[in-house]
Amino acid sequence: MPATSVAEELAKKQREISVSEFFERNKQVLGYDSPTKALLTAVKEAVDNSLDAAADADILPDILVEVRKVDKDEFLVAVEDNGPGIVKKEVANVFGRLLYGSRFFARAQSRGQQGLGISGAVMYGQVTTGKATKIISKVEEDDVAYQVELIIDTKKNMPTKVREDRVIWERAHGTRVEVPLKGRYIGGRQSIPEYLEATAIVNPHARITYKPPEGDPIVFERATEELPPKTKEIPPHPHGIELGTLMQMMKETKSYKLSSFLEEEFVRVSARVAKEICEAAGLDPDTKPKSLGLEQAKALHDAMQNAKLMAPPTDCLSPIGERLIKKGLKNVLGNLRPEFYAPPVTRDPSVYSGNPFQVEVGIVFGGDLPADQPVEVLRFANRVPLIYQAGGCALTQAVAHVDWRRYGLEQRGGEGLPFGPAIVLVHVCSTKVPYTSEAKEAVATVDEIMTELDLALKECGRRLKTHLTKKAHRAKTREKFEIVQLILPRIAEKSAKIVKKKVPVLDATITKIMGVVWVDETIAYDKKQKRHSVTINVHNFTDAGKKLNLHLLLPRGVAAKDLDPKPSEVREDGKVTWELKRIDSVDKASVTFVLEGLDEAEYDESDLYVSGINPVLVIGAEPLPGDWELNYAEFETEETPPPAEAEDEGEIDYDETEEALDDE
Amino acid sequence: MPATSVAEELAKKQREISVSEFFERNKQVLGYDSPTKALLTAVKEAVDNSLDAAADADILPDILVEVRKVDKDEFLVAVEDNGPGIVKKEVANVFGRLLYGSRFFARAQSRGQQGLGISGAVMYGQVTTGKATKIISKVEEDDVAYQVELIIDTKKNMPTKVREDRVIWERAHGTRVEVPLKGRYIGGRQSIPEYLEATAIVNPHARITYKPPEGDPIVFERATEELPPKTKEIPPHPHGIELGTLMQMMKETKSYKLSSFLEEEFVRVSARVAKEICEAAGLDPDTKPKSLGLEQAKALHDAMQNAKLMAPPTDCLSPIGERLIKKGLKNVLGNLRPEFYAPPVTRDPSVYSGNPFQVEVGIVFGGDLPADQPVEVLRFANRVPLIYQAGGCALTQAVAHVDWRRYGLEQRGGEGLPFGPAIVLVHVCSTKVPYTSEAKEAVATVDEIMTELDLALKECGRRLKTHLTKKAHRAKTREKFEIVQLILPRIAEKSAKIVKKKVPVLDATITKIMGVVWVDETIAYDKKQKRHSVTINVHNFTDAGKKLNLHLLLPRGVAAKDLDPKPSEVREDGKVTWELKRIDSVDKASVTFVLEGLDEAEYDESDLYVSGINPVLVIGAEPLPGDWELNYAEFETEETPPPAEAEDEGEIDYDETEEALDDE
Repeated sequence: MPATSVAEELAKKQREISVSEFFERNKQVLGYDSPTKALLTAVKEAVDNSLDAAADADILPDILVEVRKVDKDEFLVAVEDNGPGIVKKEVANVFGRLLYGSRFFARAQSRGQQGLGISGAVMYGQVTTGKATKIISKVEEDDVAYQVELIIDTKKNMPTKVREDRVIWERAHGTRVEVPLKGRYIGGRQSIPEYLEATAIVNPHARITYKPPEGDPIVFERATEELPPKTKEIPPHPHGIELGTLMQMMKETKSYKLSSFLEEEFVRVSARVAKEICEAAGLDPDTKPKSLGLEQAKALHDAMQNAKLMAPPTDCLSPIGERLIKKGLKNVLGNLRPEFYAPPVTRDPSVYSGNPFQVEVGIVFGGDLPADQPVEVLRFANRVPLIYQAGGCALTQAVAHVDWRRYGLEQRGGEGLPFGPAIVLVHVCSTKVPYTSEAKEAVATVDEIMTELDLALKECGRRLKTHLTKKAHRAKTREKFEIVQLILPRIAEKSAKIVKKKVPVLDATITKIMGVVWVDETIAYDKKQKRHSVTINVHNFTDAGKKLNLHLLLPRGVAAKDLDPKPSEVREDGKVTWELKRIDSVDKASVTFVLEGLDEAEYDESDLYVSGINPVLVIGAEPLPGDWELNYAEFETEETPPPAEAEDEGEIDYDETEEALDDE
Repeated sequence: MPATSVAEELAKKQREISVSEFFERNKQVLGYDSPTKALLTAVKEAVDNSLDAAADADILPDILVEVRKVDKDEFLVAVEDNGPGIVKKEVANVFGRLLYGSRFFARAQSRGQQGLGISGAVMYGQVTTGKATKIISKVEEDDVAYQVELIIDTKKNMPTKVREDRVIWERAHGTRVEVPLKGRYIGGRQSIPEYLEATAIVNPHARITYKPPEGDPIVFERATEELPPKTKEIPPHPHGIELGTLMQMMKETKSYKLSSFLEEEFVRVSARVAKEICEAAGLDPDTKPKSLGLEQAKALHDAMQNAKLMAPPTDCLSPIGERLIKKGLKNVLGNLRPEFYAPPVTRDPSVYSGNPFQVEVGIVFGGDLPADQPVEVLRFANRVPLIYQAGGCALTQAVAHVDWRRYGLEQRGGEGLPFGPAIVLVHVCSTKVPYTSEAKEAVATVDEIMTELDLALKECGRRLKTHLTKKAHRAKTREKFEIVQLILPRIAEKSAKIVKKKVPVLDATITKIMGVVWVDETIAYDKKQKRHSVTINVHNFTDAGKKLNLHLLLPRGVAAKDLDPKPSEVREDGKVTWELKRIDSVDKASVTFVLEGLDEAEYDESDLYVSGINPVLVIGAEPLPGDWELNYAEFETEETPPPAEAEDEGEIDYDETEEALDDE
C-alpha cells in the first residue's frame, strides 16, 4: 500500500469521540478499575453530592447509605439525603450526562467539581448490569417527589428516560439515587464503612447512617449542630494565572477599562493595585482589555506575577482545623495509645494557577504505635478522605520527600516513607483541587502545593522533634538527679568517715550540681464533665533565687478557665503569659488552670515557653520564640549571667565518680 | 433562603461543560501539572503519534525532536516525522479537537488510543503562552505541504485556524508539529533524552534525532532495518466483556442470528463454540440478538464467561521480547557491571474486559548494582517508557506485592519495593492499556493484569533464585573440594607416619568423598565478530563411570553454531540435547558451541539441565523440568541407585576433622 493511500485510509477512520464513549471505555480513570473499588467509588460520588447539596442550602446533612447484594457480583448502592432536592427538569441532566454540573465554573471549595461523579456511577452501572439507575428527588414547594429511571445514551452523552413518575415521598426535600452495579464487597481497609467513618469525622455536622449488605446499620452520629463556616466563591487570584487564560478573560470581559477588569475579575486587586500593575506593565489603565496584543498581554501578565499582593482570603476555604485533625488521628488508632500528638499545623492560604489552597498536617507519635512499619499517611482533600492511589498522590510523596531522620523518625537514606511509631494526617483544601484523574483519588504534584506541603510537614516534624528533645532532656536530667542523689551521699559519708567528721547536709550541693529550673505538669481528666485540670510546677533547682515568665500556647479555639495565679496577659489567639514571682533556691512555683469540653486525647501536653531567664537553665519548657512579641512593659528580669559552662557543669562523668568511690 | 429557592438557584447554575473546558481546567490529568513535566509530556505525545503513524504505513520511523528555548520559561517543542502525513481536511481536527482520533475504536496495540494526546499539548500551549501551534503535513501524492497555525476554541472544542498555507517542504511525506509552551528544562532522571533513549531501545527500528536547547544533537541510530511484526486489529474476546457492553453490541449488530453475532463479533468463537454458548444459555442460536431481554442477555453473558475458549491470538500484540528487555536493562546500567540477567519472562496473552494483553518481566541482578537502595523498576506500556507516577502504577505495585525474600532480595516485612542489587523491567502491552489517567503515566490495577504481573514477576524471581542457589551450591562444593584436598593428605600423612606405612594415593578417596558431577562453563567473547564461544565441561568426581544427557535452553530466537559433539536433538524453540558418552571416574566430557550476533551482555550464562542421572549428584545444572518432554527413544541410562545419604555423605564436619588432627 503506498503511503498516500494510508493517509487516506487513516483519514476515513478519524472521528469524534463522545465524552461518554471515552469514559465508558476508560472507566478506570473514573475509579472503576475493579469491582471492589467500583462499589466504594459509587458510594463516594453519591455522598460527595449529598454533602455538597446540603452545604449549598445550609442544611445539617442527614445521609443514608445502603449497599444491597442483588446477585453474586451485583449490588445496589442507594444514597439518600435531606438536601434541597433537584428541580424536575435538571434531574435527568445531572444524573444522565457526563460533564454536566453546577460547580465546575465556581471558584469555591466543594467536593464535586467536575460534573462527572454521579453520572459516571450511572454509566458504570449500566455497562456492568444493563440496568437503569433510579432517582427520586423532591424540592420543598412540591407536594410529591419526581422519580425517574434512566440510562445514558453514550453516543450522544444524553439521558434516556426509561420511565418517570410522580410519587409520594415522606421527606420534605432531598434526593435518593439507586445505582445497580457490579461490585465486590470487602470489609477492613479501603472499605465503605472505613471511608464513611473518616468522612463523618471531618464533617462532624453530618449524620451518616450506613446499612451494609449484611448485619446491623451503623450510625455515625453528628458531633455538632453547628454548620462549618460557609465558604465563599471568589474570583481568581492574579498569582499563577496562565497567560493564555488571562488573554481569554480579557477577550470575554465586560469591562471597558483594563484597571476595572483587574479590579473586578481578580481577588486582592484594589483600584490602587490595579493602577500599579498597569503602570508596571507600561499600559494605560484606560485601555480596552480586548484590544491588548500578545506582547502587551505578556507585559501585563509579568506585572501581575510580580505585584506584591495579599494572600487570598481564608473564607473561600474550609480547613479541618486542629481539633478535627486530632480526632481523625485518634480514630484510626483504635485501641492503640499513642505517646504524643504533635500540635497540628495549618498553613496560611496560598495560590496555584490563581486557585487558593491551604494545607494542614497532624502527626501522632509513639506509645503503642508499631515502630517496624512505614508510617501510615491519612490523606484528605476538601474534607474528603482519599482511599486509593496513595503512591501516586502528592500528599504521600510530600511525606516521603521529607528527611524525617531530622525529626526523630527512622528513614533509610532520608527518603521514602519513614518507619516508626507514627501516623501522619495531611489535608489539602482548595477552590480547585488538582486531582491526578477524574476518580479524585490522588492529588497531582503541583509545585506550589508541594512547597506548602513540605513546609507544613517540616513544621509539624519540628514540633514532634521539640517534644522528643524535651523528653530526652527530661529523661537525662532525671537520671542525673537520681544518680546525684544516690552517689553524693555515699561520697559524703565515706569522706566524712575518713576525715572523721560529721556527714555534711548536701541539699545545697545537689542543687548546685543540678543547676536547672525544672518545669513539669500533671493533667487530670474528668470524663463526665469533659474537664482537663492542669497543674504546672516550676522547681528551682539552682543555688540562687530565680525570676521568670511562663508562657502557655493553647490549641486554637480553646480557652482556659480558673487560671491561678492570674496571668499577666491572655490573648485571643490562645497565648497566655504569667509573670511569676521570684522562686527561691530549692523552692517551686505552681500554675493551674482548667479546660472544658475537650476529649481526653485532645489535650495531653501543654505547649510551654519561658522568657526572662537563660533558657539553657530550663528543662521542660522551650525558649519563647521570636514571633511571640511581648507587648507589655519590660519585665523585671533576673540578671543571672549563666555560667558559660552551664551545660558542661551539669554533665557528670559517671566513670570518674565510680572510680572515686572505688578508690576510697 | 428557603430550601426550595436553593434548588432553583442551583438549577440555574447547571450547565454542560465542553470537553475542552474540562481539560483546560484539569490540565494535570493530561500530564501538565508542572512546567518540567509539561515539556516531556508534549514531546511524548508527539513522538507517540509519529511512531503510530509510521507503523500504520509500514515505514521505518525517522523522527526529529527539537526543544528550543524561546524565553525564560517558554519553549518550542517541534517533532517531525516521515510518516504518511495527514490529509488536509483532517489536520485541523486531529490537532485542534480533544477526543478526536482514529485509534479510539480500534482493538489494536498502539501508543495513542484516546484522541487526546496531541490536541492536549496544543491546548496547554495556548493556555500558557497565548500562542498558536503550527503544523506542516504532506501526503505523498501532493507536491506541496499543507501548513496551518491553529488554536482550540475551548467553548466549542473546535479548531480555529489562525492562518493556513501551502508550502514547499523537502520531505516526500510526513508531519511536523511545533507547539509553543511554558516549560522548565531538566537533564538526568525523567528528562527528555532519557525518555527518548528508552523509547529508542524498545523501538530499535526507529531513528530518533534529538536537538536539545543547548549543545549538540543526539542521534539514537536505528538498530535494525526490520519493522516489528505488524499488530492486527481484532474483535473483543468474550471473556470479561461487561453485560451492558454485550447488550449494547446486540442492539447495534447487523447479524440477524445470535450464533452469527457471536461468531462474527468476537475473537476465538467458532460456529461450534457459538452454538455451545447458545445451548449453555438456553437460547435458540437463530434468535435475533436485538430481541434479547435483560434476563436472556444475562444467561448469554454467563455462558460466554464460562465457555472454554482459546486465549486471544498473539498477533494483535507486540511484546518487547527477550533481547530488547535485556538491552533495556543494560542501558540503564551505564558503567555498572551486573552479575546476572535472569532470563526474561514473556507470559502468554490473557484478557481483561475483552481486551487481550500480555506481560513481560526481566531482572538484572548483583555485581556493581547498589544493594542499599530500593530496586529500580523500569516500566513500559505498549513499548512506551512510563516516566512519572511510579507509585500510582500497577507495574510498581505488582513488584511491591511480591515477597522477594523468597527469591533472594532483601525486603522488610515481605512487602514494598525490595532492596538490593537489582533492576526490574516490566512491560504490559494490550489493545487497550487501562491507564489511570489521560496522561498515560501509570497503569490501573485491573485484577486480571495484576494476576498476570504477579505470575510473571514470581517466575522471573524463581529464575533469579535458581541462579543464586546454583551459585551457592557451587561455592559450597568448591569450598568442600578445597578443604578435602587440604585436609585429607594431612590425615593420610600423619596416619601413615603413626603406623609407619607409605602415604596412600588419595585421588579415588577424594573423589569418593566429593561424589558429584561438576558442570561448569567458560564463555569467550569476540567483540569484533560479536561471537560467543561457549565451552561446557562435565567433570565426573564420583567413583564410578557416569552417563547422562545434557540439555541446553537457548534464549528465544538465538541459534547455536558449530556444536561439538553433534547434539542428539536441536529443536526450533532453542532446546538442544546431547546424549553424552560415558564419562569415567575422575574424567570429564566437554561440549562446545558458538553464538553469533549478540552483544556481550546478552549471553552470560547457559541455561543447563541434566537427565538420565540422579540430579542430586549434579552441581551446575538443574534437573530437566517435566514440561521438557524427551520426544526421542529412551536413553540408555545409568542405573546408579544414588546413595540415600548422598547429600549427607557429602557434608564434612570440619570440627570433627580438625579434632582428629589435633588428637594425633
